[in-house]
Amino acid sequence: MYQHHTKIRVRYGETDQMGYLYYGHYAQYYEVGRAELLRSLGWTYRRMEEEAGVLMPVMSLNMRFVRPARYDDLIEVRTVLRQLPERTITFHVELYNEASDLVNGGSVKLCFVDARSQQAVRAPEFLRSLLLPHFAK
Amino acid sequence: MYQHHTKIRVRYGETDQMGYLYYGHYAQYYEVGRAELLRSLGWTYRRMEEEAGVLMPVMSLNMRFVRPARYDDLIEVRTVLRQLPERTITFHVELYNEASDLVNGGSVKLCFVDARSQQAVRAPEFLRSLLLPHFAK
Amino acid sequence: MYQHHTKIRVRYGETDQMGYLYYGHYAQYYEVGRAELLRSLGWTYRRMEEEAGVLMPVMSLNMRFVRPARYDDLIEVRTVLRQLPERTITFHVELYNEASDLVNGGSVKLCFVDARSQQAVRAPEFLRSLLLPHFAK
Amino acid sequence: MYQHHTKIRVRYGETDQMGYLYYGHYAQYYEVGRAELLRSLGWTYRRMEEEAGVLMPVMSLNMRFVRPARYDDLIEVRTVLRQLPERTITFHVELYNEASDLVNGGSVKLCFVDARSQQAVRAPEFLRSLLLPHFAK
Repeated sequence: MYQHHTKIRVRYGETDQMGYLYYGHYAQYYEVGRAELLRSLGWTYRRMEEEAGVLMPVMSLNMRFVRPARYDDLIEVRTVLRQLPERTITFHVELYNEASDLVNGGSVKLCFVDARSQQAVRAPEFLRSLLLPHFAK
Repeated sequence: MYQHHTKIRVRYGETDQMGYLYYGHYAQYYEVGRAELLRSLGWTYRRMEEEAGVLMPVMSLNMRFVRPARYDDLIEVRTVLRQLPERTITFHVELYNEASDLVNGGSVKLCFVDARSQQAVRAPEFLRSLLLPHFAK
Repeated sequence: MYQHHTKIRVRYGETDQMGYLYYGHYAQYYEVGRAELLRSLGWTYRRMEEEAGVLMPVMSLNMRFVRPARYDDLIEVRTVLRQLPERTITFHVELYNEASDLVNGGSVKLCFVDARSQQAVRAPEFLRSLLLPHFAK
Repeated sequence: MYQHHTKIRVRYGETDQMGYLYYGHYAQYYEVGRAELLRSLGWTYRRMEEEAGVLMPVMSLNMRFVRPARYDDLIEVRTVLRQLPERTITFHVELYNEASDLVNGGSVKLCFVDARSQQAVRAPEFLRSLLLPHFAK
């Protein structure tokens, strides 16, 4: 298992007229969560695209909304990899507010695509290598 | 069952550097789909909030991404109610591109909240009345 | 002079907790306005990129906010070209609500960039040809 | 004069298919810049709304785009108040990339509105008091 925590402050432009963080913006918080998880491994999603030529399109997204997040809330995004990626990679995400209440939980599954051929490929070996120590028994 | 179809053209600002409609924007397409479904019943979500004092926060969202949508694609959003709303309402959504290929499918579940008391309530009676003829045996 | 009008309905996700169309979303309405103006000429911005290999990055944006737009408002976007494009193109934009009140007015200036060389270029000849009849004395 | 610097990392969902930070998202970076400037004074925009009952709608926005920002760039947002607010407040903003190149510059003018009466009011006295020491001769 490998996990990483990062924080995001809710922007005014992300609220809606209910005064909530609009439900459509959580996907972007998930995105930041997994980008920062990769960075914590010493890699970045940017280099994944630029150097490895691997894109990671999203295959599925599931989320449940437990309580609202509001403007200026500092949200902790906890992103967890429970399994080594093979042909897909699944990030499990939980968002907590400053009172440590669960705001939202869910998961997002992505695949790996070679930018040139546009074909699905296995998880890049360097990514598996970086993760392997965290999954060793 | 009650369904409604509406069309949304992908904006440039909704694409990402992969050249895809960013996965986080689909939630907004779902939102437009259910708003237009309500309008087709002779009601609007705006009046739901303003006149009936009922908010509809999202409880869960599930989507699978089948193929990319791209800039300027005219996406057909097909929104379906399979059941009369009780304490919650679930919209089933499918997005199709101009070649009638499925782009994305999923569902979103919302509840009803009284704006003043902030308590969960049952689906407003007027909404059930509007839907009832479409669910009669 | 050449002008085109198009309509955009304010989405829930575009409002903020003040109940206004968030000021950051107007730029996207301007984008839709100029994309539809191009389409009305028998061309599209998509083909500009894909077939002509010309990108149009924004150089400057100026807007004044006259009155709020709100959720579900049907906004008319009036986009005007006052001059034939040379090395840059400037769109003048006004947004009106359903009561025909001015909501927002401004302008956006873009340049033309060759996608391969990434160099600034003059407005493509085909675009000037399409506009010329509308600017003839 | 009072100024504050803050940093924002460009999210994937904020890029467009040109590979640029979409021009419509800069307004949100400006918003974060002024929110953090207020926070650095020991106040927050959230408390402005909640405690002082003062809203700050945007009156005008002007920006020039000097060079693109790209995915994962860490952008420094420099926000400057050149004058004590009276009936309006103007924030001057410059965005720099990690190479300290200017990416974007502009200004945004807001007014103060009493949330209850919806009338324009003068800048709240507490805000002027917090700023005064920085503007004393």
